[in-house]
Amino acid sequence: MSDASILSPKGFRAAGVACGLKSVAGKKDLAILVADQAAGAAAVFTTNQVAAAPVLLSRETIKRGRPRAVVVNSGNANCCTGEQGLADAREMVRLAAEAVGAQPDEMLVCSTGKIGEPMPMDKVAAGIRDAAQALRSDAQAAADFAAAIMTTDTVTKTCCLTDRIGKADVTVAGACKGSGMIAPNMATMLAFITTDAHIGSRALTAALRTAVAGSFNLVSVDSDTSTNDTVIALASGAAGRREIQQGSDEYVAFSALLRKVCLDLALQIAADGEGATRVIEVRVEGAATEQDARAAARAIVDSPLVKCAVHGGDPNWGRVVAAAGRSGARVDVARMKHWIGDTLVFDAGTPTDFDVAACEQHMKGPRVLLRVDLGVGTEDHTCYGCDLSRDYVTINADYHT
Amino acid sequence: MSDASILSPKGFRAAGVACGLKSVAGKKDLAILVADQAAGAAAVFTTNQVAAAPVLLSRETIKRGRPRAVVVNSGNANCCTGEQGLADAREMVRLAAEAVGAQPDEMLVCSTGKIGEPMPMDKVAAGIRDAAQALRSDAQAAADFAAAIMTTDTVTKTCCLTDRIGKADVTVAGACKGSGMIAPNMATMLAFITTDAHIGSRALTAALRTAVAGSFNLVSVDSDTSTNDTVIALASGAAGRREIQQGSDEYVAFSALLRKVCLDLALQIAADGEGATRVIEVRVEGAATEQDARAAARAIVDSPLVKCAVHGGDPNWGRVVAAAGRSGARVDVARMKHWIGDTLVFDAGTPTDFDVAACEQHMKGPRVLLRVDLGVGTEDHTCYGCDLSRDYVTINADYHT
Repeated sequence: MSDASILSPKGFRAAGVACGLKSVAGKKDLAILVADQAAGAAAVFTTNQVAAAPVLLSRETIKRGRPRAVVVNSGNANCCTGEQGLADAREMVRLAAEAVGAQPDEMLVCSTGKIGEPMPMDKVAAGIRDAAQALRSDAQAAADFAAAIMTTDTVTKTCCLTDRIGKADVTVAGACKGSGMIAPNMATMLAFITTDAHIGSRALTAALRTAVAGSFNLVSVDSDTSTNDTVIALASGAAGRREIQQGSDEYVAFSALLRKVCLDLALQIAADGEGATRVIEVRVEGAATEQDARAAARAIVDSPLVKCAVHGGDPNWGRVVAAAGRSGARVDVARMKHWIGDTLVFDAGTPTDFDVAACEQHMKGPRVLLRVDLGVGTEDHTCYGCDLSRDYVTINADYHT
Repeated sequence: MSDASILSPKGFRAAGVACGLKSVAGKKDLAILVADQAAGAAAVFTTNQVAAAPVLLSRETIKRGRPRAVVVNSGNANCCTGEQGLADAREMVRLAAEAVGAQPDEMLVCSTGKIGEPMPMDKVAAGIRDAAQALRSDAQAAADFAAAIMTTDTVTKTCCLTDRIGKADVTVAGACKGSGMIAPNMATMLAFITTDAHIGSRALTAALRTAVAGSFNLVSVDSDTSTNDTVIALASGAAGRREIQQGSDEYVAFSALLRKVCLDLALQIAADGEGATRVIEVRVEGAATEQDARAAARAIVDSPLVKCAVHGGDPNWGRVVAAAGRSGARVDVARMKHWIGDTLVFDAGTPTDFDVAACEQHMKGPRVLLRVDLGVGTEDHTCYGCDLSRDYVTINADYHT
């Protein structure tokens, strides 16, 4: 499976080319993904009210069109660009649709990069032409696609999983980008999911919403949410003749597979968080309500003090307990427990006589587990983030608009 | 007024001594403040459910006692210390009351520093004895008090203002500590307010709550809230024979003076935020509701990306606009405006052709104003924070429990 990619599911072609949108010459910045015949399409967009032009346009296409392809550029977010931005997004759709032999209502558009700058449409037009000509279904084409959607990412992020669903082997694959501004709910991130499952748009949309809620929306890099976030799923239907119906066993299995791919991608984003050196998993248990569990987990994973402590490898239980205490979630300090990895470090209102070396060892690993029992109920919630480093500040203080 | 201090209002004595609670030998870490006769007392405490023993105890004393003095230690927060911690806080009160010739229900107690460590009561007892003997009402005693309450603070923080209220010159003064974990609502911060106003506990409590809401609770360093936060106000009544009654003109004038002192102290905390190099003032206007204005202002001032941009002196309007857009507050992008200092940088959905040099110049100053009009209503809100630097990470990643 070493060549597994978003082109592993049958029925897709992709390309990634350089057209000069990124400041470093030759860096890929324009990509196209096409399903030659789409069984279904689905998308989830940013909840930020300041939404970019491509988001506004693709939202409409998802509602009223029959999408089976997407054109993506990095380097320019086409956000806060007014009427001209919307016209440019429409022109990108028109050009890309024409170049790949599709109708405009079959083409979605995504942009990521700097905001508030006009799209250099001459470059974009050339890039679209080049990308359409380069469309292929091999591993190199998939790698080019994954590279062309990157911005501050340091690595490409892809995942591909196959499972037996009903009588067919169904593959779900994805490529995504994102490192800063990742927060519930989805930030400067774009994710593209391909599958050969035979599933219609309505069922795929339901499965994607559930998968996003259980993956991308659980990951927080810095609690900021961007204007361009989009997750798009396209199904080619090549894997089986029987359509997966919502509510069926096959649907449940497909949803689980889709969520696995999304969670894997989301954790790759957290691991590549700007300046991040490790992933933090926060598991809150014993909450009075699910909302409480979420609030406590989110307060812990977003706490700059907790993030710094994890960066320093310091088993600073006090910051975790204090974050839970101020989260708004009901807690019973006298029944509260906190574990770092498997080590119980706080019990019944006071720190335990814990093995500091064991905790520090756990905190040196690539994934740090902070588990908290609020001591008042039975609800739980898990979410993910990353540590806060000097490099985060360097990247974000020196990146000028 | 160069010697103005918390001992400028008549009727108070204070002291600050070293008793070995801080790791650096000789650093002051125990303080006492006494009103020989208190007209009134008031306090506001942390909203964190994980509250420290001294908070639990002082809350009771404010409710049922007649407080006129406070004993404070730094270096140990006496938090997450269980029953023993509560017994230790009680013992601190008993010892301090005895040493200054007061009753236990006249003595409040505050602690700040590391959490989860038992109080070294032998050191504390010796410190209380020394401090009680050192009580004086001169400027040096006030400076010693201000120094003894510091933890990661780099400077002492005091403020003293006098105003004509009714027929009396009333002075309100304060000393506070706090730099990390400062968030709405009050974090690792302690503030002690003295006044010679003749005002009873009930009216003082009302005035203090209003003042805290309009000062300390508007300041956010890192959105964390600590377990020990306390603001205490003591009135000696020495300034006038006529008691200030709630609702009177004198009460309104006194409340305004108290709020001024608290806001001055709060801004000193923001300026001394861990690693901070400048204060950020966020002013949100044109909101549909006051809650929306608060949500947007808070989202902007707490955004790590905005904080990094301010640190880097980058007029990154996009991060400000995006933070408002994801805050939950209703915004109309087409009517939204954003100013950096006096410069309009974003108008009607797109960036203006603004003077970048002028913005950068403003952002080099000690106080950066980010003003945003959401374009949907008439409500506004102002809050304060500070930038995010590499030093913040260094301080908080390397400070081990």
